[in-house]
Amino acid sequence: MGALRFPPLPTTVETQAGARRPLETTTMPGLLERYRDYLPLTDQTPMLSLHEGSTPLIPAPKLSKRLGVELHLKYEGLNPTGSFKDRGMVMAVAKAVEDGADTIICASTGNTSAAAAAYAARAGLKCIVLIPDGNIALGKLAQALAYGARIVAINGNFDAALRLVRQISDEHPIALVNSVNPYRLQGQKTGAFETVDVLGDAPDVLAIPVGNAGNISAYWMGFGEYHEAGRSTHLPKMWGFQAEGAAPLVRGVVVDEPQTIATAIRIGNPASAHLARAAVGESGGLFDLVSDDEIMHAYRLIAQEGVFCEPASAAPVAGLLKRHAAGELEGGQRVVAVLTGNGLKDPDAALRSVEAPRGIEAEMDAVMASLR
Amino acid sequence: MGALRFPPLPTTVETQAGARRPLETTTMPGLLERYRDYLPLTDQTPMLSLHEGSTPLIPAPKLSKRLGVELHLKYEGLNPTGSFKDRGMVMAVAKAVEDGADTIICASTGNTSAAAAAYAARAGLKCIVLIPDGNIALGKLAQALAYGARIVAINGNFDAALRLVRQISDEHPIALVNSVNPYRLQGQKTGAFETVDVLGDAPDVLAIPVGNAGNISAYWMGFGEYHEAGRSTHLPKMWGFQAEGAAPLVRGVVVDEPQTIATAIRIGNPASAHLARAAVGESGGLFDLVSDDEIMHAYRLIAQEGVFCEPASAAPVAGLLKRHAAGELEGGQRVVAVLTGNGLKDPDAALRSVEAPRGIEAEMDAVMASLR
Repeated sequence: MGALRFPPLPTTVETQAGARRPLETTTMPGLLERYRDYLPLTDQTPMLSLHEGSTPLIPAPKLSKRLGVELHLKYEGLNPTGSFKDRGMVMAVAKAVEDGADTIICASTGNTSAAAAAYAARAGLKCIVLIPDGNIALGKLAQALAYGARIVAINGNFDAALRLVRQISDEHPIALVNSVNPYRLQGQKTGAFETVDVLGDAPDVLAIPVGNAGNISAYWMGFGEYHEAGRSTHLPKMWGFQAEGAAPLVRGVVVDEPQTIATAIRIGNPASAHLARAAVGESGGLFDLVSDDEIMHAYRLIAQEGVFCEPASAAPVAGLLKRHAAGELEGGQRVVAVLTGNGLKDPDAALRSVEAPRGIEAEMDAVMASLR
Repeated sequence: MGALRFPPLPTTVETQAGARRPLETTTMPGLLERYRDYLPLTDQTPMLSLHEGSTPLIPAPKLSKRLGVELHLKYEGLNPTGSFKDRGMVMAVAKAVEDGADTIICASTGNTSAAAAAYAARAGLKCIVLIPDGNIALGKLAQALAYGARIVAINGNFDAALRLVRQISDEHPIALVNSVNPYRLQGQKTGAFETVDVLGDAPDVLAIPVGNAGNISAYWMGFGEYHEAGRSTHLPKMWGFQAEGAAPLVRGVVVDEPQTIATAIRIGNPASAHLARAAVGESGGLFDLVSDDEIMHAYRLIAQEGVFCEPASAAPVAGLLKRHAAGELEGGQRVVAVLTGNGLKDPDAALRSVEAPRGIEAEMDAVMASLR
């Protein structure tokens, strides 16, 4: 892995006022500012920002060696609320403000609710979150509550919650920010822009978890727009990975009771299925599935690179490992895996696979003995 | 708050190769690279990085209005492991590698263990964490376990754990990375550099939580070095805030059984007490204490800016609110509050103050009625 082809590091920046100063005297702007020329903004769109985006693309030398490719991890867990959802939500909430809304609503079991609540708080809007009764990761509910969202638990599943929020936004002056909101994908496509910007070109393969299928669709849109703008010489193959118990796009049938440890992709009937199929088809990519065991194995290998992600984020790495084991991963390629959320979103996953340490005597020999 | 005096945004960067390109075509380097001229690096120091640092300085318009000052939040929760500890740890672990160590050790009840385990994994070192039996936040232990650290729980308190790791590192070829390691403060001082870089000058007041007292000392060192280098026109006043039940620097006596909801600053006998006293004394600053109720009130107000921090991080904002209420906060100043950790580190804190939502019928009128 001496061949990581990062572009030369920048040293100075030019300000809007025309002055020059060292790069370290700046901070990255939020996404609406950074990619304003590529987003559907108007003069009336507020420049809402929590400094989302500009997440690191972290080289993964140990996994690269194992896989025989040049693997980079796009670590979306360092977005303001800890997941890639912030990219789409900053755009959706900015447009809600532009349209005069004073309340937003969504159905969510996790990352979406945290992002919606954070940007609503920032913009001074009220936020209503409908959750299916039960089945929500602790950390994610904590966030929406902390940001001041009104949480309503309904007696029903996610589909019922989504039907309700659509009905409510149709009949009340309340903006819907679920993924049916078209601005969400517009914001999410910036992940592809950043990938190309940092690598200097598109990767050969973009590996990504697929749940509701919006993100793979958004990345494909972003790669396409950047390519058209002359910012990359080629388009990547889009590889979408689903969990074995929640793999409607792999199996070609809706899954009524999706099951997986990777809660962020536990979705049986993806809203953006058609767009995701187009992304995979047009790019010459693929869908594949990975088991929960394979996901948790990849999760631990990613942590050995120094990166802590939520289980769903490990699915693309699990998929790459699976295809490598099957002799179906071409060596030497540049591959980017999108790690969609922070491991702190779901600490139970990390604790599940280990025994709690037992207390031993506070004495050096006892400690050293316990380490043998 | 129309008067937030951010410098003009940069538009282009110059690469080391001399070419120019738009700012968005880059990513911020890690701290060792970004501040190499200000850190004790040699040609043998590995450029270890998880893209730590370069955390956003987020303007807080609602709190600014309430306080009558220009308040910015330095959101350290967006470091790779979710706290400011990454700044010092990247430096300490890089130096351990340089010195030939193959194992690092620390005593920790939280953020330190996560940072140590992450950078050890990245650098290919083994990591041993001694924890006092009981009393550790779930998310923080989960991280160290995920990164592959060996966790040893001892029958004893934090002081006993610290004594043991010092003894072990004295008698074995194992590098100690607790805050007695001088490289920790060297790395942490970069938080001050970034603050000055983004604001274009030092703030008038730097408000910061004080537990073990290393961070306030490191910031003061950083402000001093930058001022000497001509990067700022003045030095800030250093305001250190402790929790009421863990306020040895305010009360002037060691606290045997420190108690506070803000676990990250629940320390009764700060290792860097003398340095912190010097920082406050030399800067014309102050120490003050805030109650757990004041901390949780500030925690909710910070979330209303769209920022989710751990309780300890809310202490400086609680302190500013307290001094404002007492008429002791001069209006119009530029103030930076350091939010040391991500709220996801301690989701229980967010859940503690609210009732779990009860399930209602999945029907629009029932939902709308529940919102009234």
